[in-house]
Parts: sequence; C-alpha cells; structure tokens
Amino acid sequence: MNKSTKRPKIAEISKRAGVSNATVSRVMNSQGVVSPQTHEKVLRSMQELGYSLDAITRPGPDNQGVILFNVPTLENPFYHDIAMGAKNSANLHGYHCLVNVQAIDILTLDQLIKLIRKTRAAGIIVTNHVKADILKKLNAVTCVVQCCEYAADSSLPFVSIDDYTAARSAIQYILSLGRRKIAFINGPSEYKYARERRRGCLSALESAGIKPVDSWQVHMPSINFEIALSCATQILSSPNPPDAFFTSSDVLAAATVKAAQQAGLHVPNDIAIVGFDDLETAKMTSPTITSVSQPRYQLGYTASEILSERIETPTAPPSRILLASELVIRQSTAVYI
Amino acid sequence: MNKSTKRPKIAEISKRAGVSNATVSRVMNSQGVVSPQTHEKVLRSMQELGYSLDAITRPGPDNQGVILFNVPTLENPFYHDIAMGAKNSANLHGYHCLVNVQAIDILTLDQLIKLIRKTRAAGIIVTNHVKADILKKLNAVTCVVQCCEYAADSSLPFVSIDDYTAARSAIQYILSLGRRKIAFINGPSEYKYARERRRGCLSALESAGIKPVDSWQVHMPSINFEIALSCATQILSSPNPPDAFFTSSDVLAAATVKAAQQAGLHVPNDIAIVGFDDLETAKMTSPTITSVSQPRYQLGYTASEILSERIETPTAPPSRILLASELVIRQSTAVYI
Repeated sequence: MNKSTKRPKIAEISKRAGVSNATVSRVMNSQGVVSPQTHEKVLRSMQELGYSLDAITRPGPDNQGVILFNVPTLENPFYHDIAMGAKNSANLHGYHCLVNVQAIDILTLDQLIKLIRKTRAAGIIVTNHVKADILKKLNAVTCVVQCCEYAADSSLPFVSIDDYTAARSAIQYILSLGRRKIAFINGPSEYKYARERRRGCLSALESAGIKPVDSWQVHMPSINFEIALSCATQILSSPNPPDAFFTSSDVLAAATVKAAQQAGLHVPNDIAIVGFDDLETAKMTSPTITSVSQPRYQLGYTASEILSERIETPTAPPSRILLASELVIRQSTAVYI
Repeated sequence: MNKSTKRPKIAEISKRAGVSNATVSRVMNSQGVVSPQTHEKVLRSMQELGYSLDAITRPGPDNQGVILFNVPTLENPFYHDIAMGAKNSANLHGYHCLVNVQAIDILTLDQLIKLIRKTRAAGIIVTNHVKADILKKLNAVTCVVQCCEYAADSSLPFVSIDDYTAARSAIQYILSLGRRKIAFINGPSEYKYARERRRGCLSALESAGIKPVDSWQVHMPSINFEIALSCATQILSSPNPPDAFFTSSDVLAAATVKAAQQAGLHVPNDIAIVGFDDLETAKMTSPTITSVSQPRYQLGYTASEILSERIETPTAPPSRILLASELVIRQSTAVYI
C-alpha cells in the first residue's frame, strides 16, 4: 500500500507509542497541548507503522478563530516579546492572535465583553492587573489566562515570575557591591509585580540590618522615561543621596543613568544601577545596564499554550506556573575600585 | 423648556453655525470626519440655541464593530504612538481597534482575509509595505487605508510624510555642520520610506558636489539595534571612515552612537549622528540624538479618521495626505569647535 494513501489507525498508533488515543488525535489534528517528547514519539510510531506524516493536519492561523492578547499599554516595550510568544503559539494551534490595548476594570468590562462577542474570541490572555471578581465575569464569557500579572485570590490559570525573589536577589547583589544607600524606583502599586518587588526589596534590606528610606521607595504612575528622569533627579539632589538604584524597568533605569550623568555623577562608581526586564534599552545606554531578565517570549508562549489547552478542555485544573528570572550583569554595576 | 429635554432641530443649528445639515448630523452622531474648528462651532451654536450637549450620541468602542491596525512588527517602537492615534480616533467613531502583527503578501493574504471575515472587520489600516495588486484584493473585502507606507501605483487613500524632502533636509543640515563624509544606515529597501530617503540623501549629496560612497549607503534587514551596531562598527573601522551618520530610525542611531563610543570616537566632535522618528530612544542615550520627528500619533489618528469616513461613504474620493516632519536638534550634532 502506498504510504501516502494509507489511512492511519489511531488505536494502532497509540498502542505503539504508549500514549492515549486522545493524545494521538491531538498530534494528528495539531490541536491541544502535547509535550515535544510525546509529539516526537507519536510521529516516530506513525513512521514505523508505515503511515505518511502528511496525514497530520497543519492548521494555519485561520482554522480556529481568534484569541485576544490584552495589554494595558504599548508604551512599555516589555510587552512586545510577550505578544510575539503568545502569537506564535496561537498560530501553531490554529488561532489568530490580536492585540487589544485596554485597561480592564468595572468601567471597561462591558466594552471588552462586546469585543469578545463581536470577534467571537475563543479566549483571552490578560497581562493587565485585574481584580478577581472582574476576571470571574470575563471567564464566564470566554477562556481567560493571566500572564505576568495575576490576582492572588483568583483561581484562574496564570504564568508569571517570582517577583519577590527576583527583587530580593537583585538587592542582595547590590549590597554585595558594598552599597547600603539603595533607592527603588518601582512601577505603579496597582500591579502585583510592583508590590511583590517592594516586599522583596524591603526584606533584603531588613535582613542586612538596613532601615529603608521612605522617600527612596517610589511608585511611578507609569513606566515613562521623562517622569522617571524627574524623579531620579530629585532623589539625587537630596543632601545625602543614595549610592545605588534598583528600578522595576530598564526604561526607569535608563532615566536614572541619565539623571546621574546630568548631576555630574559617575555610573557605576558613584551610583550603581540595576534595571528589570532586560530590554534592548539596557544595551543602548552608556554605560549598559545590569538587569533582571524575565523570559518574556516564553511567558507569552506558555500563556498561549495554557489557553489553547483550556479552550479544548475547560475542566482541566488551572495551571499556575512561575518561570525563572536571572540577573544579567553589565557596566552600570561593574565597579572597579 | 428644560435644556436637557429639548430636542435639537438640525436645520436651526446648521443655519446658526453656518454649516450643512450633514455636518451637524455628523457632530451629533459622533460619526464621520469634522474638523475641530467646525466641531466647536456646532457645539457653540447648540449651546447658544439652548440645547443640551447631552443630545450628542457618544458611542463607546462597541457600537460599530472592529477595525484592524496592521503592523509588520512590534519590535520597532515607531508603531506604538501611531497605533494609539488610530485607536483613539476609532473609539471616538464607535469602533474597537485591534492590532494585528503580520506581513501582508501573496502568501498571507488568504489568512488575513479569513481574519477580516471572522472578526467582521469594517476596515483595516495598513502600515506594512504592500504591493498595489494585493491592496486591491484586500480592498475588495474591506475598507483599506494606508498609513506611513503606501504603494505609489495604488489609488487607495493614504497618510504619510514626504520622506524624500525630510531626508534631503537632514543631509543638508549635516552638510551645514561642515561634514562631507556622510554614511546612511537605512531601513529595508522593500519600504517606500527607505527608497525615498535614499533618493533624498543622494540628491542632497549630489547638489553639494559630493560623490556618495557605495559601501556607506546601507539597507538593514530590519530595524534592529544589534545588527546596526555591527554594521556601524564595520563602517567606522574602514581606513577612511565617515565623519557623520544619517540613519532611518533612532534605534539605528543609538547603535551608531554606541559603535562610535566603542571605537573611542567622540559624538558629535568626531562623528555627528542624525536619527529618524524622534523616539524616546533619542532622549535616553548619552549624547541625546538629533532626529527627524514624524507626527506619529497624528499619522495614526488621521488614517483612522479617513477610514471611518470611507466606511461611511465608500465612494468618497480617496484622501492622499502628506504631513510635515521636522528636525529636532540634540547633542549628537551639537558640535562646539
């Protein structure tokens, strides 16, 4: 029999691969989530049984419909790689992925629900900070997965990083450089990440026996270069200024580098600076900026994988995943004494 | 009669405001395109006649459906303000505006058409470089407006800037600084903007009697910091390097600043650098970067206004609008001799 015309028998393949019929079906229809190992096992079994891999459906991003990727803003470059990760996973599962820029709260929820109905969106990935009761209402309309931000009191799935530990480690690193006067320019306190990083920062300072200076623990209204430049300039003009800054974004760190240079201070000799997110921005400045690197693409990709799985199996237990972050050392902390 | 219950008479308002009934109707229904001056004139006349402005319909972004804003990439921060302008205008006209990140060519057209059908999109704003025949096929499915990029041989509406003149002026400015050895790091040659800016650059050099160096007229494969850093480093390592760079994006300019500094050269004393787009990036670097500023928000807003108008009146003659750009002088060209 010609390989390409032989119709695959699912039971035969599942037996040989040692997986369930459902898994073979998922691989053959390119739907749902299958680990790379299992995927390969199924393909190998198919080949060993003489089946052509052409039998596998390869849906383009048009077979399944639309999922939405919701961001609070496009101003912060943090979201771009996340969106690309989400889009690429969505496309592989046969979905279009459209970016919606919108706050999600009690005032905008109705609009968003109408958008979901108009576009018949199968699901939504939410990177905004959203209250648990709003998320619940949204989830009654479509599948919801939280990405980066998540409501601690919601039972919905999420993928994020451990912001507390990441910030704690960053402060411990700054302390290891011999700096004790550490300011922290943080994001808006509505965000989980900002509150957790603040907690991590204060914990590290406390463990080192350092009393934090209240006016050096600042929450910005948004991740904006100009506002952060004013803020850092003001902190640096105080009579007894800090000798290090930790910031919740490389955009804020770049503003701090600029503020220090404008004040005639040397980075890192006078002021050590650590950013967050490992954006391209951190490589553009002189000096380049030490930064806590988040796996941005992977965060978006994983959120989209979870979403595809939930669309197919809404009753599956919600995944709650924390990915690892790491510190990338650059010139802004490379002190030579 | 109570102001809030008095039903406005359109003929009465149009007479007082000195505009047509159709214009008053557009203002009252918050639909179609009305200039800010006319808008205000109508509102003032309504108030003078004792009508409440509550009579004006204020559609949320849910009454009309969806329009798509298509970008080739999210990597280039150039598109963010444009998207915001498009979104804000769309919302005022009652549309949701969703961002789709996708190349538009013969391979992807079917997918895009399926997306338009799935979302029942009333129109699409295209910032990609797209061939005229593809645009025509797309326009058979939904209303198309081109933004920034446009096909010269297409009859569809567009809003853009005059890239030829902008580049020509930038080179003339660099020449006025006494620099004669000018390299140009440009965007991909598939883009209209890149070809027009090259033409503008070469024209300015020719007018000044300068023969361009071929290897200094470079088209990047994308607007990417790392690739541009390699490219600028290579050009600067030649035996007789340039004394100025013009670049088609501030991201490329920031890479050139970095390359010059790594080569031990002073910006601007050894190398003057001019970027394009006036992104936040141009203010982040040290030195800050002189840049050709495009009215990004206005480009997106205007494209979306044209689109709303065309959705309402598909037979209207296509608008073809060029907005002005201007040079913002910063430290990267502020030479003190």
